[in-house]
Amino acid sequence: MKAPHPWPTEDDLGLLVDLYELSMLQGYWAAGMEGQATFSLYFRKLPAGRRFMLACGQQHAAHLVTRLRFPEAALEKIARLGGFRDEFLRWLGDFRFSGDIVALPEGTPVFPEEPLLEVSAPIAEAQLLETLLMNLVHLETVLASKAIRMVLAARGRPVVDFGMRRMHGIDAAVRGVRAYRTAGISGTSHVLAGLHFGLPVSGTMAHSYIQAFDDEAEAFRRYAELYPGTTLLVDTYDTLAAVDKVIALRHELGDAFRIGAVRLDSGDMAALARAARARLDAAGLADVKIFASGGLDEHGIAALLAAGAPIDAFGVGTSLGTSADAPYLDLVYKMTAFAGQPRLKNSPGKAVWPGAKQVFRHTDEAGRYVRDEVTLRSEHRDAEGLLVPVVAAGEPLDVPTLDLDAAAAHAADAVARLPESLRALDDTAAGYPVSISPALRAERERALERIAPH
Amino acid sequence: MKAPHPWPTEDDLGLLVDLYELSMLQGYWAAGMEGQATFSLYFRKLPAGRRFMLACGQQHAAHLVTRLRFPEAALEKIARLGGFRDEFLRWLGDFRFSGDIVALPEGTPVFPEEPLLEVSAPIAEAQLLETLLMNLVHLETVLASKAIRMVLAARGRPVVDFGMRRMHGIDAAVRGVRAYRTAGISGTSHVLAGLHFGLPVSGTMAHSYIQAFDDEAEAFRRYAELYPGTTLLVDTYDTLAAVDKVIALRHELGDAFRIGAVRLDSGDMAALARAARARLDAAGLADVKIFASGGLDEHGIAALLAAGAPIDAFGVGTSLGTSADAPYLDLVYKMTAFAGQPRLKNSPGKAVWPGAKQVFRHTDEAGRYVRDEVTLRSEHRDAEGLLVPVVAAGEPLDVPTLDLDAAAAHAADAVARLPESLRALDDTAAGYPVSISPALRAERERALERIAPH
Repeated sequence: MKAPHPWPTEDDLGLLVDLYELSMLQGYWAAGMEGQATFSLYFRKLPAGRRFMLACGQQHAAHLVTRLRFPEAALEKIARLGGFRDEFLRWLGDFRFSGDIVALPEGTPVFPEEPLLEVSAPIAEAQLLETLLMNLVHLETVLASKAIRMVLAARGRPVVDFGMRRMHGIDAAVRGVRAYRTAGISGTSHVLAGLHFGLPVSGTMAHSYIQAFDDEAEAFRRYAELYPGTTLLVDTYDTLAAVDKVIALRHELGDAFRIGAVRLDSGDMAALARAARARLDAAGLADVKIFASGGLDEHGIAALLAAGAPIDAFGVGTSLGTSADAPYLDLVYKMTAFAGQPRLKNSPGKAVWPGAKQVFRHTDEAGRYVRDEVTLRSEHRDAEGLLVPVVAAGEPLDVPTLDLDAAAAHAADAVARLPESLRALDDTAAGYPVSISPALRAERERALERIAPH
Repeated sequence: MKAPHPWPTEDDLGLLVDLYELSMLQGYWAAGMEGQATFSLYFRKLPAGRRFMLACGQQHAAHLVTRLRFPEAALEKIARLGGFRDEFLRWLGDFRFSGDIVALPEGTPVFPEEPLLEVSAPIAEAQLLETLLMNLVHLETVLASKAIRMVLAARGRPVVDFGMRRMHGIDAAVRGVRAYRTAGISGTSHVLAGLHFGLPVSGTMAHSYIQAFDDEAEAFRRYAELYPGTTLLVDTYDTLAAVDKVIALRHELGDAFRIGAVRLDSGDMAALARAARARLDAAGLADVKIFASGGLDEHGIAALLAAGAPIDAFGVGTSLGTSADAPYLDLVYKMTAFAGQPRLKNSPGKAVWPGAKQVFRHTDEAGRYVRDEVTLRSEHRDAEGLLVPVVAAGEPLDVPTLDLDAAAAHAADAVARLPESLRALDDTAAGYPVSISPALRAERERALERIAPH
């Protein structure tokens, strides 16, 4: 068979599921099981080398799933799968999510065992959302968590996303930019995503542009004429010789040759940056900045700055776009209560905390985060409860951090309040303390006793 | 700002670019540079632990880019970026790709230095496609290359994709299934993608379904009643106790309780599979298969089979869906010729082979692949030339492996013809020999002499 290129739309939301969700849905429908369930979205352990994750996408995802419907075309496709009764499909045609969702604000540092999001709804509805919610939140959380490392490594210098070409498909390349913006990335080369999410779109030139001219200086001159203040790529043939050409052009053409930066993309970046800086400064071009790219990750950025390389901004691609060292997070979506009872899977070594929960983040007198506590939702503490209502009775609520500027501000503030050692790139720091409240522990014991006879 | 959920469509193809492609495009337009260029899509080295990649997506991508246009809405967005002249935007409104593309058949094993695809077109057109082509081909090649490892490890047993939840976004979860189908994966849990690409959609049940019933056996009975021949998940509380419940239900209900398999999802899988098999066989349920899932990768599959675990089929998720050990490929898109001249970037240690090329795959008398040779496109050999025309003068050509069955058949045949050692999961084998033809080497020398004076 030949299949046309797939461009999913909102009408496909109900098909962006694993088959078992539809099968279980019919199972609950057939058995008349309409009890309320709570499902919790969380992870059990951090990827190696990480000390926190930056939760991202959970509020947007919660709003999106309220739009999940099964239009006629979707029902016809489900019918083709076999195993689904006409009456069930008619019921599915009327489906809409009627439950409640709480979630962390976009850009919140999060630790193992802490829910990023909890859904409370009739069991069939809550179950149906499993794979879609996980896919949406997993991507943005993984990418935001990598991005914040780049931002921290660059110590205030701009970091620009160049990663679209090797990101995992178009949706990742688009929504990744939302995660980057939340994490404090300064710009993106990706036109559609930058415009969509209001992140400045920037870019320079490829080596091919230089190669297309017989003379490198001619390529520079024409580009600067067309794009005053642009960045010129100087490593196509000989980096420092190219810097000399830039200087000569500036001396020859004066203000008719205005450039903002030169971009280094290969070679010994620290040495080249120092030499380029010296030549530019000596020629009176102290205003021309040095931009570095080419296989950089957070460790590369940190090493260059530690070596005193005079680099003003960084472009990062593959390592950011694929979160290459930690391309996935152990994110799960587990039922924790049903029909008024806590429910747990009995997995050795994999604690599941029952019921609807809250996360309290305790601070010291300076506002710094010192410890978290996961509690029953009904508990109260003299601290900030992180999980906030995002959807009530199926209706999306207006939440501050759905605004991308607010999310980025929240992330920057929250990360700055973490213990200093957690913001380091190495993973030698002790983990951030997260405790489970006595009441939640007791609830778990009660739930385990309940399943013990089986 | 709040941005609605992005659902890119075909109308956005011209915005799925890095800004520099549009900037260079205007540069070529402004300079009146209309010469023909050739760009080559290839990778320089294999990811650690791999001995070949399975090229996937390149023919579909070539066809898709012929549909790239700039509708009015896209032009308005580009105008918002600033820096683009009205006259250029009008020219862009008439853009359509007019060049030629050759590509490897879908599902072809490919090695470093071998083009997966080459574009020959006016330089502006060829340059514009860079990021979109790379994104499309990179994803499917990375995922197909991981998938074939799962398929080889399972030695003929079905492998089913369960990975949507942790794949990088929706597009990856959709198009990944095309790559999986090409690589020989037997089924997917993902409803939309399975239906779209004709891969059987399958699924079982989640632990939450079992937990929602007071009694595990009751959950089993109801599911089997609704879905005769289904697979039952047996590890929610105690795997072997659950297997005993399955046996008891079969004895009690007879043919009214028909199940196809039990699914193990945690614990010591080899020991549990052996014990479950023994109990099922002793009870006369030799027809009930054993399905294993839960954190498996190709090494886990191989280890289970090496240990003699009586497992009939495997479900794989995250490790497949993110290609966790090798989440990216060093794929590049480089200009190799312009205006009748070979063009190269002068990168120490990064050989670029100039001009339009061909890849010949030499076989022995039994049809086994023994070595490849990368040549100038104009050379001839008594061997199969792998790169075939896919787009001519901007028009998509009908190519056999655009049919997914044909692609899967081609991949299975080609992988079977590789040297035995390349199909092993370990990476101790010598690499597959790829040579560069003397004429291509001479062309490179000529190109390097040409840039030497700079």
